[in-house]
Amino acid sequence: MTDKSLWVRGLLQEVGTELERGFYQLQNYAVKKRFDLRSECDLQADQKIKAQLEGRFPQDGIYSEESSEKPSSNGQRWIIDPIDGTSYFIFGEPFFSISLAREVKGVVKEAYVYNPITQEFYFATASEEGAYLNDGEISVSRTSELKEALLAFGFSANPAGIKKNLALWGELMGGCKKALPWIGPALSICSVAKGRVDGFLDTGCSMEGQAAAAFILQKAGGQTRDLEGEGYSHRSIGGIFTNGALRL
Amino acid sequence: MTDKSLWVRGLLQEVGTELERGFYQLQNYAVKKRFDLRSECDLQADQKIKAQLEGRFPQDGIYSEESSEKPSSNGQRWIIDPIDGTSYFIFGEPFFSISLAREVKGVVKEAYVYNPITQEFYFATASEEGAYLNDGEISVSRTSELKEALLAFGFSANPAGIKKNLALWGELMGGCKKALPWIGPALSICSVAKGRVDGFLDTGCSMEGQAAAAFILQKAGGQTRDLEGEGYSHRSIGGIFTNGALRL
Repeated sequence: MTDKSLWVRGLLQEVGTELERGFYQLQNYAVKKRFDLRSECDLQADQKIKAQLEGRFPQDGIYSEESSEKPSSNGQRWIIDPIDGTSYFIFGEPFFSISLAREVKGVVKEAYVYNPITQEFYFATASEEGAYLNDGEISVSRTSELKEALLAFGFSANPAGIKKNLALWGELMGGCKKALPWIGPALSICSVAKGRVDGFLDTGCSMEGQAAAAFILQKAGGQTRDLEGEGYSHRSIGGIFTNGALRL
Repeated sequence: MTDKSLWVRGLLQEVGTELERGFYQLQNYAVKKRFDLRSECDLQADQKIKAQLEGRFPQDGIYSEESSEKPSSNGQRWIIDPIDGTSYFIFGEPFFSISLAREVKGVVKEAYVYNPITQEFYFATASEEGAYLNDGEISVSRTSELKEALLAFGFSANPAGIKKNLALWGELMGGCKKALPWIGPALSICSVAKGRVDGFLDTGCSMEGQAAAAFILQKAGGQTRDLEGEGYSHRSIGGIFTNGALRL
């Protein structure tokens, strides 16, 4: 683990402790208040991460959906998702994460995903072999048969979206061992990276949620594909994320 | 908190520590192995709880889906669900629980639900006012308007089930503030009890998963209904669980 990765881990743990406090505090708030507090947590986490990155890497650009983009003066850029899986955060489900990726000339070179409730810290860097969860190396599963596979689907609970995706899902769901609907792409993709789930398919996830996790998956031996074909870019919307042995 | 509740908490914490070990151990197992280990964890937790209950309450009956029913000789019976939300357990999502209810002549009088990962212990007893999460009393939310409500749906990822439920879900999903698909009824219902979610609807949950949580919800001020009408029994399949202010 590089010094920089250690520093990022410290930062995410610090921000994570605040998110954890907010997460448990949400109880018994009125619905509007719950969304307000979520936004506040989101914004505070974003600002804290941004300020720390600016202090340590003043020339790097910073992209976050929570605030305006800070342009890069050295070709390097950070992509922040302060809470990936915000619906889980609001609903009280401990399956959300902070996601942070560093690009060099548009290519991800460092990736960090942290679940503050389980304190699982996933990371990978271009300068080191492999991908890691806390202190151990992780790798994808070897499941190659669809009928043996555990699959997760990016899910949005709106009837129009469900109807639209049902044919696609139906074919996979019906053919696999077990399928689950999941909301946050970062932890879903990391679950494939650590070999817990064999594939994840999302038709709507954005760059902030998938950039870090997709890189971690690649370093763990997995495969990333666009919805349309063979190529993959974390700038596309959605993607297919597998252990590499399984064809979806 | 009664002596008996304290004793149950100790038991669930002990069993929970073993489940937590199994949960993290599942990583990088082949799919079949993951299901085998889940079954093993399920069975071991069941046997441990059963043995402890038999030792302390030798005349009580014990019902569990994991083993044959032990008949009651005093009209009292325990209902055990050693892992509610087994799919989450297998997929690595920290949102599963141990559920334990005690019936007297068919009526639930004590209820315990424990998430070993977040160490959230929900409980309520007929002899005490209110419902509790760890050391604090909990109560349902006050949301009364569907358009303001956060709703959860019992979800099974099979295309036929989804098609069947889509009309029902669609109406509610489309009309509410935000909806999520959830797997384990025990924590879903407890989430309504603690005011985090305003309603939960499940068309397929069984007695073991809902008995304890439904009692906790009632003691927290919430409402339980059958899918067909006004009545509710934890022996029915499925149910509608709300804060009482919201009409679903």
